[in-house]
Amino acid sequence: MRTLNVALGDRAYPIHIGRGLLDRADLILPHLKTRRVAIVTNDVVGPLYLARLSTTLASAGVGVTTISLPDGEAHKDWPTLNRIFDTLLAERCERSTTLIALGGGVVGDMGGFAAACYQRGMPFIQIPTTLLAQVDSSVGGKTAINHSLGKNMIGAFYQPKLVLADIDTLSTLPDRELSAGLAEVIKYGLIRDAEFLAWLEQNLERLVARDPEALAYAIERSCSNKAEVVAADETEQGERALLNLGHTFGHAIETGLGYGEWLHGEAVAAGTMMAAELSRSLGWMTRDDVARIESLFERSHLPVWGPKLGAARYLELMAHDKKVEAGRLRLVLLRALGRAAIHGDAMPSDIAAAIETRCR
Amino acid sequence: MRTLNVALGDRAYPIHIGRGLLDRADLILPHLKTRRVAIVTNDVVGPLYLARLSTTLASAGVGVTTISLPDGEAHKDWPTLNRIFDTLLAERCERSTTLIALGGGVVGDMGGFAAACYQRGMPFIQIPTTLLAQVDSSVGGKTAINHSLGKNMIGAFYQPKLVLADIDTLSTLPDRELSAGLAEVIKYGLIRDAEFLAWLEQNLERLVARDPEALAYAIERSCSNKAEVVAADETEQGERALLNLGHTFGHAIETGLGYGEWLHGEAVAAGTMMAAELSRSLGWMTRDDVARIESLFERSHLPVWGPKLGAARYLELMAHDKKVEAGRLRLVLLRALGRAAIHGDAMPSDIAAAIETRCR
Repeated sequence: MRTLNVALGDRAYPIHIGRGLLDRADLILPHLKTRRVAIVTNDVVGPLYLARLSTTLASAGVGVTTISLPDGEAHKDWPTLNRIFDTLLAERCERSTTLIALGGGVVGDMGGFAAACYQRGMPFIQIPTTLLAQVDSSVGGKTAINHSLGKNMIGAFYQPKLVLADIDTLSTLPDRELSAGLAEVIKYGLIRDAEFLAWLEQNLERLVARDPEALAYAIERSCSNKAEVVAADETEQGERALLNLGHTFGHAIETGLGYGEWLHGEAVAAGTMMAAELSRSLGWMTRDDVARIESLFERSHLPVWGPKLGAARYLELMAHDKKVEAGRLRLVLLRALGRAAIHGDAMPSDIAAAIETRCR
Repeated sequence: MRTLNVALGDRAYPIHIGRGLLDRADLILPHLKTRRVAIVTNDVVGPLYLARLSTTLASAGVGVTTISLPDGEAHKDWPTLNRIFDTLLAERCERSTTLIALGGGVVGDMGGFAAACYQRGMPFIQIPTTLLAQVDSSVGGKTAINHSLGKNMIGAFYQPKLVLADIDTLSTLPDRELSAGLAEVIKYGLIRDAEFLAWLEQNLERLVARDPEALAYAIERSCSNKAEVVAADETEQGERALLNLGHTFGHAIETGLGYGEWLHGEAVAAGTMMAAELSRSLGWMTRDDVARIESLFERSHLPVWGPKLGAARYLELMAHDKKVEAGRLRLVLLRALGRAAIHGDAMPSDIAAAIETRCR
């Protein structure tokens, strides 16, 4: 087992990465306020891992309430969130009860936001079961639901007490979701870790083949990058925005197609290609740099072209981005492979051209 | 103008109390992040004060979006909250836009919770226009909406950047709402300020008659008490719970009758009489003490008897209280006039007897 720490003062918390962690009550118990938990999961992950986690906790004398949500980004909305509140209240969960999110990014986002709001805040533990959640969404305290006018528009910064990434749960992950997770892994290399990027260029096929050792290394390195950024800028006043490489374009794809059509990581991959193309057109990167990124995504079986929504529609959807400031779109672009920067002065015509170039 | 400070480190903020403050752009501008605000109000307060505040800000070069909600506790729910999000998104408000809540406790609770959640948190200013909001709900960062199974169950601790209490706005406040505000004023005397309680016993009729000087003093003294408690215990791990004297019983009245039947302050007054009666039955106070409290509420034209819901129904509703811990109801009771304490060991039979004694 590998352990990292997210250094956030009195809200610091550990990330444990390893195998067989769902059986380790000893890792969870020290973080519970009372011997009572509510586990939020979904109807895909629940049948696979809920009984095991429940047994681990019940055997340790913990009272367990379970809440299963429908699977998928399309359900990351208020009515589904309210189902969590309904159950928490009906089962008389208290503000000292710990909410555990067992599942992928959607379960973590909704469980985390429910924990942030229930009785103005209850303790929260992340047990991510997808690669994307293990390397990205479970770490750093971003929680949210979607609004029909924009993704992740309603949410909170709310840190977990503990993140438990059990690599064994990746064995049941569909190939498409494994690939989606790799998009975020590659992102860390692109924005701030050239050495990791080089490792990925050499080892990507091991990750696609689910080599446990390679996965453990990639997850740890990704979480380590994320933990550093979050510790430096918890509420995204500056550096943390760099983690959103490809996300402004990607959110436009997700919203434009309707939530759930593309996986988040797929949209991020295509969106990153748009950001790379714009970076190239500004003279920051070479065609060869862009080709290297494209190759990484292709080897991960990720889309490298966006859907043809039309550049005008993309720009309209992107105008709702949370990074917009004083009406200006602030994009994360690449100064070089391994170095991202915020750019607030891109011409709409240049952005549109990059989008058109990368749609097919 | 009197100014207090809520000492919360990097989230400290001022409370200004005085007359004519709606015209004072100079007090608001230093707290805006950008020259853009969204004012949330309701259909009662809006027609009275929205134009004045909007003009003050627009004249200072601030872009103003306005959102008017239906009036009343019955609308403190998710669909109404979502109307705020709809407008913020449709009008392209950014996370740097400042949300201003102009109105009473419901507007402040909903505006504050919307600000806490919109794009994971936007700056927030409270301009309370009722006595209850000026002395209590606008200070301290508690925000929430109701759930059908309990009051204020979904919310956040989210501090404003500024509280502006313009006493002139109390001139249009209905008598019933002025009385409801006095319930919370009297509360501060009861739980921690015997000297203020003595002042209230001598000056209550001046407050009922809306003497501006007496109101300014009572508001400042109330806010000062609240600010001290909040600074010591922002998220209600301990002392802050004492501010909820009468509230556990009161919430049962509000939920039991349906939101909006009784005003919050009215329910708190009747609930405080139940807490006082229970304190007396435990031998902590005399019959004379209880009579002094009853007299203060009666002189404020507040109810001193709860509705006859039956003690069993009260206890059932109270079991959802946020202060319940490990299944035990933790009640705020009075050790003496001017000194409250948490009691976690009251017998249900004693609680039921106190309720029955104070229902009519």
